Amino acid sequence: MNEKCMELAAQLVPKTFVKVAKDASHSREKQIENLLIHKKIPEEGWDDISIELLLSQLALMDSNNFMGNCGLGEREARVASSLVARRHYNFGHGIGRSGDLNEPQPKAAGSSLMYKLTNRFLEDLFKLMGIQSTVRCILVPLATGMSLVLSMMALKSSRPGADVVIWSRIDQKSCFKSISSAGCRAIVVDTKRNGDQLETDVEGILKKIKEVGANKVLCVMTTTACFAPRACDNIEEVAKLCKQFDVPHLINNAYGLQDKSVMCRIQKAQRVGRVDLLVQSTDKNLMVPVGGAIIASFDEDLLQTVSKCYPGRASGSPIMDVFITLLHLGKSGYLKLVEERVEKFKLLSEKLREIAAGIGERLLESPQNPISMAMSMSKLPADELRSYGAKLYIRSVSGTRVIDLMEHKIICGQEFKSWGSSTNDYDVPYMTAAAAIGVTDDDIDLFMKRMKKIFGKNQ
Amino acid sequence: MNEKCMELAAQLVPKTFVKVAKDASHSREKQIENLLIHKKIPEEGWDDISIELLLSQLALMDSNNFMGNCGLGEREARVASSLVARRHYNFGHGIGRSGDLNEPQPKAAGSSLMYKLTNRFLEDLFKLMGIQSTVRCILVPLATGMSLVLSMMALKSSRPGADVVIWSRIDQKSCFKSISSAGCRAIVVDTKRNGDQLETDVEGILKKIKEVGANKVLCVMTTTACFAPRACDNIEEVAKLCKQFDVPHLINNAYGLQDKSVMCRIQKAQRVGRVDLLVQSTDKNLMVPVGGAIIASFDEDLLQTVSKCYPGRASGSPIMDVFITLLHLGKSGYLKLVEERVEKFKLLSEKLREIAAGIGERLLESPQNPISMAMSMSKLPADELRSYGAKLYIRSVSGTRVIDLMEHKIICGQEFKSWGSSTNDYDVPYMTAAAAIGVTDDDIDLFMKRMKKIFGKNQ
Amino acid sequence: MNEKCMELAAQLVPKTFVKVAKDASHSREKQIENLLIHKKIPEEGWDDISIELLLSQLALMDSNNFMGNCGLGEREARVASSLVARRHYNFGHGIGRSGDLNEPQPKAAGSSLMYKLTNRFLEDLFKLMGIQSTVRCILVPLATGMSLVLSMMALKSSRPGADVVIWSRIDQKSCFKSISSAGCRAIVVDTKRNGDQLETDVEGILKKIKEVGANKVLCVMTTTACFAPRACDNIEEVAKLCKQFDVPHLINNAYGLQDKSVMCRIQKAQRVGRVDLLVQSTDKNLMVPVGGAIIASFDEDLLQTVSKCYPGRASGSPIMDVFITLLHLGKSGYLKLVEERVEKFKLLSEKLREIAAGIGERLLESPQNPISMAMSMSKLPADELRSYGAKLYIRSVSGTRVIDLMEHKIICGQEFKSWGSSTNDYDVPYMTAAAAIGVTDDDIDLFMKRMKKIFGKNQ
Amino acid sequence: MNEKCMELAAQLVPKTFVKVAKDASHSREKQIENLLIHKKIPEEGWDDISIELLLSQLALMDSNNFMGNCGLGEREARVASSLVARRHYNFGHGIGRSGDLNEPQPKAAGSSLMYKLTNRFLEDLFKLMGIQSTVRCILVPLATGMSLVLSMMALKSSRPGADVVIWSRIDQKSCFKSISSAGCRAIVVDTKRNGDQLETDVEGILKKIKEVGANKVLCVMTTTACFAPRACDNIEEVAKLCKQFDVPHLINNAYGLQDKSVMCRIQKAQRVGRVDLLVQSTDKNLMVPVGGAIIASFDEDLLQTVSKCYPGRASGSPIMDVFITLLHLGKSGYLKLVEERVEKFKLLSEKLREIAAGIGERLLESPQNPISMAMSMSKLPADELRSYGAKLYIRSVSGTRVIDLMEHKIICGQEFKSWGSSTNDYDVPYMTAAAAIGVTDDDIDLFMKRMKKIFGKNQ
Repeated sequence: MNEKCMELAAQLVPKTFVKVAKDASHSREKQIENLLIHKKIPEEGWDDISIELLLSQLALMDSNNFMGNCGLGEREARVASSLVARRHYNFGHGIGRSGDLNEPQPKAAGSSLMYKLTNRFLEDLFKLMGIQSTVRCILVPLATGMSLVLSMMALKSSRPGADVVIWSRIDQKSCFKSISSAGCRAIVVDTKRNGDQLETDVEGILKKIKEVGANKVLCVMTTTACFAPRACDNIEEVAKLCKQFDVPHLINNAYGLQDKSVMCRIQKAQRVGRVDLLVQSTDKNLMVPVGGAIIASFDEDLLQTVSKCYPGRASGSPIMDVFITLLHLGKSGYLKLVEERVEKFKLLSEKLREIAAGIGERLLESPQNPISMAMSMSKLPADELRSYGAKLYIRSVSGTRVIDLMEHKIICGQEFKSWGSSTNDYDVPYMTAAAAIGVTDDDIDLFMKRMKKIFGKNQ
Repeated sequence: MNEKCMELAAQLVPKTFVKVAKDASHSREKQIENLLIHKKIPEEGWDDISIELLLSQLALMDSNNFMGNCGLGEREARVASSLVARRHYNFGHGIGRSGDLNEPQPKAAGSSLMYKLTNRFLEDLFKLMGIQSTVRCILVPLATGMSLVLSMMALKSSRPGADVVIWSRIDQKSCFKSISSAGCRAIVVDTKRNGDQLETDVEGILKKIKEVGANKVLCVMTTTACFAPRACDNIEEVAKLCKQFDVPHLINNAYGLQDKSVMCRIQKAQRVGRVDLLVQSTDKNLMVPVGGAIIASFDEDLLQTVSKCYPGRASGSPIMDVFITLLHLGKSGYLKLVEERVEKFKLLSEKLREIAAGIGERLLESPQNPISMAMSMSKLPADELRSYGAKLYIRSVSGTRVIDLMEHKIICGQEFKSWGSSTNDYDVPYMTAAAAIGVTDDDIDLFMKRMKKIFGKNQ
Repeated sequence: MNEKCMELAAQLVPKTFVKVAKDASHSREKQIENLLIHKKIPEEGWDDISIELLLSQLALMDSNNFMGNCGLGEREARVASSLVARRHYNFGHGIGRSGDLNEPQPKAAGSSLMYKLTNRFLEDLFKLMGIQSTVRCILVPLATGMSLVLSMMALKSSRPGADVVIWSRIDQKSCFKSISSAGCRAIVVDTKRNGDQLETDVEGILKKIKEVGANKVLCVMTTTACFAPRACDNIEEVAKLCKQFDVPHLINNAYGLQDKSVMCRIQKAQRVGRVDLLVQSTDKNLMVPVGGAIIASFDEDLLQTVSKCYPGRASGSPIMDVFITLLHLGKSGYLKLVEERVEKFKLLSEKLREIAAGIGERLLESPQNPISMAMSMSKLPADELRSYGAKLYIRSVSGTRVIDLMEHKIICGQEFKSWGSSTNDYDVPYMTAAAAIGVTDDDIDLFMKRMKKIFGKNQ
Repeated sequence: MNEKCMELAAQLVPKTFVKVAKDASHSREKQIENLLIHKKIPEEGWDDISIELLLSQLALMDSNNFMGNCGLGEREARVASSLVARRHYNFGHGIGRSGDLNEPQPKAAGSSLMYKLTNRFLEDLFKLMGIQSTVRCILVPLATGMSLVLSMMALKSSRPGADVVIWSRIDQKSCFKSISSAGCRAIVVDTKRNGDQLETDVEGILKKIKEVGANKVLCVMTTTACFAPRACDNIEEVAKLCKQFDVPHLINNAYGLQDKSVMCRIQKAQRVGRVDLLVQSTDKNLMVPVGGAIIASFDEDLLQTVSKCYPGRASGSPIMDVFITLLHLGKSGYLKLVEERVEKFKLLSEKLREIAAGIGERLLESPQNPISMAMSMSKLPADELRSYGAKLYIRSVSGTRVIDLMEHKIICGQEFKSWGSSTNDYDVPYMTAAAAIGVTDDDIDLFMKRMKKIFGKNQ
C-alpha cells in the first residue's frame, strides 16, 4: 500500500501500528528495488511471499491485466479458464516479439521485464559456477534438443554453405537428431577408449575437419555431461582445433552447469581456444519442469543472432519457472545444492562399489565424468541383462540404464553399433546411475535396497 | 476414496451419510471414466473441482510423484520451488521422448496420457468447427512461427532438394522469418487488389511454381487469418494447383480455427485439392497463454514425421493449458464463444462504420476477412498517422494497427514496400481492429469512447 | 512497484512501455485508496487480481510477515504448514485483543484493518437492504446460535437479575438451546394459527411479560426467517411491547438479511418500538462457508458491550471470507443475487403448486414468509411420511423437511409437541422447501424431476 | 483413477507404464486407508500432494460438491467467490449439527469425517506428549477464552447453583473475563512468592473453598503456561483439594501442550486428584492461525456435555488447519519441534543471562516455568520502563513484555494491583521473553542484537 493508503489506514487502526507496518512493507519494496538495481540472483533466497508479491506486481504491468484495457487485436492474452490464469500468475503474453525472443513486448512490460531479469540471473549463475569471462545468456522455452537446433540455425545464418556438423559421439538420440533437424549432415567421430573410460578422439576430429574442409563445417559439437563410462569431451583441445581452423564450437552442456569442474573446463576451453555456443537444460540443472534451455555465448552478437532466429513469440512458462526458482534458492541455496550433489556422488560411488564387490562386479573408472557412474554387469547372461533394467523400472527405480552392447540402431540414416555405449566396441556390459542435482540420501538408500533385492541371489 | 476407505469411514460417520457420499463421489469417477472411453471434449464444461481432480490423478501417475520412487538419472523432474511444483500441478516431466514428441514417456504415464487426450480433444474440436474428413492433430509447445518451421522441416525430410517456399504475401514478420529459419528460400507473391480487398494472386503462384519447377518447391504457404483488408487466401484454388503440380500446401491458419467459415473453406480445399499441414495458434484460438500451436494434417504419416522432427522432450505447460481449457469450456462453451465472436464482429463493424462516417472516413470492404476490419484514414496528414497509433496505445487500446503505407522493410534479405499492408501499392492508409474470440461488449464500448476522444475534433 | 522501481524497470524495458504499465498499476492502487477513503462495499465487484492484491498488502502489515521480525512471545502466528499459511493468505493473528473483539491488535495492523473494513461493509450492506437508521455491525466468528448466546451475555451484563427470555416459538434446536447456554430460562410462547399460517401470539407475549415482571425479563426473542408455514414474527408489535415495558428485543434474523421485505419490517420495528440486537448468519446470507454471524445494533454502546463480552482473540477466517465475498460481488452483485432469489421464489412456488395439484395436495398459504414454503402431505399414510424425506435425501435433494407432526421432543428440559412445526397442534403434515440466496434454475428443475419421480405413482 | 480408468488409460499409453503408475497411485490410496484404520497421526508427515488428495476426496463427500445435488434449504454451503471456495478446499458446511458440535452432519459426510479424525489425532497427540490415561478431545473453533466459557457452561449444566470460580491469579485479561462471560463470580487467590518465583497459594485456595462452600464452587481454575516469574500452578496439590472437596478442576493449559514437563504434571494431577477439563490453544501449540482450542477431558460424558453446550454449527476452518498441520508434521515432526523448543529455551536463557549481566541485571529464577523467562529491569528509572517496551515494538521485536508494576486495573469490577505481574506486590520490574514452539535461532539472534542496541549505553 502506498503512502496515501497507509495514512488512510490510520483512520481505522492506531497510527503507531500502521507506522510499524509501513516500515515493514517498505522492506519488501526495498528488496524489489535492490533486485532491479543489481539485476542479480539474491544472495539468500526469498520467501514465497516476496516472490509472489513480485510476480503479481509484474503481472499488473501486462496489458491483459490493465483495468481499463480494451483489446482489439487477434492476440490479447485473454484466458478462458481461471485455473489457467491462476497457474500463470495472470501472465499471458509469453515472451518475444515477432522478430526476436529478447525484444520487449509493448503489450507486456511485466513479462518482458521478467525475461530480462531472468537472463541476467543466468549470467550471474554462470559466474557463480566458475565462468569469469563475460558471458551472455538467453533462456529459451525449448528443451535441449531443440535449442541445439536453434543454435545451429544461428550459426548457419552467418556461415552460408557450411552444413556439416562434426560430432563426438554421445549416444543420446535427441542430440544426434538435432543435427538433421537443423538441416545439417552429421559426421560421427567415435570415442576412444582409455582404461574403462571413453574419451574424445581429438585427432579423429582434426582429421574430419581437414577431410571436409573447414569452410564446410558448420561446427564441431562436443558434450560435457553424459552417461559413464563416457567422459566429458576434451573440450579444451577441441576448442584449440576450432580456433586454429576457424570453425565454430558448439558445446552441448546439457547438465554440466550444475558441476563446477565442468564449468571450469568450459572457462579454460574459452581461454585457450574457441567456444561459440553453450546449451544447457533448465530442468536438469535448475530443478524446474522440463521445457527450457539456456543458450549462452561469450559473443553477444552471436547470441543476438540466436535470439533473432526464433520466429515469433514463445511460451513464458519456462521463464517463470526459472525466475521463481532462482529467487527461491538464492545464490546460497544453489551452491548448497551443488555441494550436496558432490557429496552424494561420492556416497553413491562408495555404495555402488560395495554392491559391485559383493556380486563380483566393479565400478568402471571414469574419472572425468563427475555426475554419472557405471557398474560392470559381466557375470550375467547377455540375454538377461535387459530384464534387469525392467526389474529396476517396475520397482520405481528411475534413471538407471542397462547397456547390453547389443542394440544396433539407425537414426536419420546413420548406423550406430552398440547404441547406448557411445562407442562401437566396448566389451563389458554395464549399468549406469547418476547423482544429479537434488538427489537425496533417500534416493540412494532405496536404490541400494532394491539393488540388493534384485542381485540378491548373486551375493 | 476407494470402496475400502468408504467402509472405514462408516466407522466414524453414519453409514447412510457415507452411502450418499459414495454415490456422489462415484459420479465424478464415472465422469473421468467416460472421458477415457470417448476421448472427446465433454459436451458441457467441467467444474474446476473435476478438472483438478483429474489433474491430480494424472500427476500421481508420473514417477516424480511416486511415493517410493528413487531417481538415479540425470533428469528426474525434481522441482526445487514448491510454487513451481504447485503451478504445474506437480507435473514435471514435460512431454515426448528423445525421438518423438508424441511417444509416451516411461517415467511419466500421466503426462503422456494427458498429451494423448489433448490431441484427441483437438481432433474433436476440428470436427466441431466443420472439418468432416479425418484429421490428426498434435499440440506442440511452440508458438505459430516455430511451428511453421517444424512443419517445413518435416516436409523437407520427405522432399529432399526442395527448398523454395512460395508465399502469398502476408505482412507478419514471424511468419516470413519462419521460412528462412527452416533453411528455405521464400518467393513472395504479392496480393492482388479487388475493390478494397487484397486477394490471392493464384496465377502469380502458378507462374512461380512453373518458374521454379515443382520439384524444387518445398511447399506453397497460404494464410487464412490476417489483418483486413487482406482476405483469407484463396486456399481452394491454391489447393487445386498444389494437387495438380504435386506440391505440398502448408496453411498458416493462425487464428482461423475460431471461425467456422474459414474452417469450412479448409475442408473444401482438402476436398478439391491438396492440403498437407495446418498450423494454428492455441493462444489465439483457445484463450490460453502464448506458447502452443496445433499442427494438423489429413495425412497421419506426415503428422508423425512432424512429431519425430522435434528432437527431445518439450514443455508440457502449453499442453496442460489447453487440456484444462477444453475441459472447462466443453463443446458448448467453445461454440458459445464462437457464436458470440461473430456477433461482436458485426457490432464492431457497425460501430466503427458510424465512427468512420462521422469523420469522413469509411470501413474498407473485405468480405472475406471474418475477424479483422479496416477503417480508412485518408483525411489525416500522412506524417501524423503513426501518432494516432501511439495515442491509442497510451490509452490502453491494444491490438489496433495504423498502416501509413510508408514503412519499407528488409527482412532476411527480402525487401517489402508498404510493410504492414501485405501489398506493394495500396493507396489508402488505414487502421485495423479485430473481433477475436473472447472480445467483449466492454472492449468495444471502451474502444469507441477512446476513438471518439482521439478523433473528436474531426467530428 | 513504487516510482523508483518503475524507473529502474526502464533500464531493461522501453520507457514508454513502463509508462503505460505504471499508469495501469496506478489504477489498482487508486482502487484501494478509494476503498480506504469510502470504507464501503464497491459499487461493482472487484476482479480476483485486485482482491488478492489487497489481501497480500494487508498481510504484509502483520508482524508474522515482517521480514526482520523476531517473535519472543507465546503467540507469534508462526504457521507450520505452507498449505495452511497459503489458504489464509499468510494471515495468522486472528482478530481481537484480549479484552475486545473489535480492538486493533498491535501485532496485526493488517488483520485489524481488514476487520474494521469488513464491519463497515456490513453497515453499508444493511443500508443497501433497506435500513435507513444508523446501524452498527460486528462480524463475529461464531455461527448464529453462539452469537445469540453472546448477545444475551451482553444484555445480561447491563441487566443484572434478569434471566428470563420470552421466546416466540420457532422449532430450530440451536436457537432454543442458545437460551440455556446463555444461562437463561426460556418461556415459550406458542404461535397462533391464522389460515395456514402460524403467526406471533403478541398477546401471549404481553401476558408473559406481565406474569414474569418486566425487570426479570432479559429480552424477548423473535425470529424473522423460518420454515413455512410459520411466518416472520410480528416484530413491529413485539417491538412496541418491548418499548412500553422497557424490555430488550433480540431479533434472530438468521437469514432475513437477504430479503428486503424482512429488512424493511426491521426498520419499521425500530421506528415504532424497540430493537436491541439483530443476529444474522453470514453463510445463510452471504454465501460463505459456515462460521460467522453479524451482530447488529442501532445502539453503538450496546454493540461495544457485545464486542467486549467476547473474551480473547478469535478466528479471522470467517472475516476474510466475508471481506473477499463483498469485494467480489460489489453492491450490484449482491443486489442481483437478491433480486434473482425473489424470482426463483416465485418460480419454485409455481412449480411446487403444480406438483401439489397433480397429487391432490396444495401449497400452504404463508404470505409472510418470503423464503420458505410448505406443501401439504395429507394424502399419504402418516407412518410413511418420513420415508419420503429419506427418499429425497438419497436422491441428493438437500434442505427439504418433512414434518409429520408426530415428533415430541424434550430440549433442555422443555417439552415440545409436534417438534418441527413451531406449534403444538397443526393438523396437516407437510414438507418444506426454500428458495434461499444462490438457488438456481437447475436446483429447481432437478427438484421437480425428483419430486415427480417420488410422487409419481400418485399422479 | 479406479481400476477401470487404468485399463482405459492403457489404450493410450503402454500397459507396462500404466501398471507401474497404478501401483504407485495405489500407495497413496493405501496411505489413506491406513489413516482411516488407525485414526492416528501418521508417524512421518505426509507430503502436500497426499494431504491435498485426501482433502479433495473428503470435500467430494459433502453435498455442496455433489454433481447432481439440488439444494432447497436455507443453508446449502453455496459459495459466491471462487477464491473463498478454493481456500476452504471446497468445504462449506462447517461442523456440528444444531444440537451438538460433534454430531455428524447429514449434508457433510466429508466434513464430519475430517472432524472426527482430527479429534482422534488430538487424543493421539496428548498421548505422544505424555498423557497415559485415556483422554478425549474435541477441537472447538473458539480461541482459549471462549473455550473456557464453554467449559464453565458445561460444568454449570451439571452443577446447578454453583457459580463461584476460584481462580489462582494469572494476569491475562481474557482468561479472567471468561469467568464473568460464563455468568460466574470470580474469587481471586493471589500467588505466593518463593524466591523470584510466584507460586500457587494452595492454602489460600483451600480457605476459599471452605469459605464459599464447596457446593457453591463451580470449579477451581488453574493455569499451567504463563509469563515468568509466575510458575505453572501447583496443579497436583489443587487436584487433590478438588478431589477432597468434590469440586471440578478446570485447567487453563493454554500453551502447555507443547511441553512434556507440563503434560507430565497434568498426568500426575489426574492420578493423585481431580482434573475435569483442560483447555489448550491450537495456535499456541500447533502453529496454526488463531481460532481454535482443544478441550480435553478424562471423562467422556463431561466432554460430550461440552460438545452439546455449543448451540448450532461452527466454522470448520480451524479444524482444517489442525488436520492439515498434523498430517504435515506427523508425530516425528511435532516431536522435533518440541525438542528444538527446549533447546532454544536454553539458548535464550543463556543469551539473556549474558545481556543481563552486562547491564547489571539478572534473570529471575522461575524453574517451574519451562517456556517464559524474565529479566530484571531494576536499574532504569521507573517512569522510563514502558518506553523500552515501545522501543522493542518499533524494532519489530514482538511478544516481549515490560512489567513496571505500576498498572492498577479494574476488570469486570475486580481490582488488580500491579496488573501484569500476577501478584499484588512484586518488588522488581522486569521484562519477559518466551521460547515458544517454532522459535528459531534467527529470532533469538535478532532479539539479542536489538537488545544490545537498546540497552547499549548501559553496557
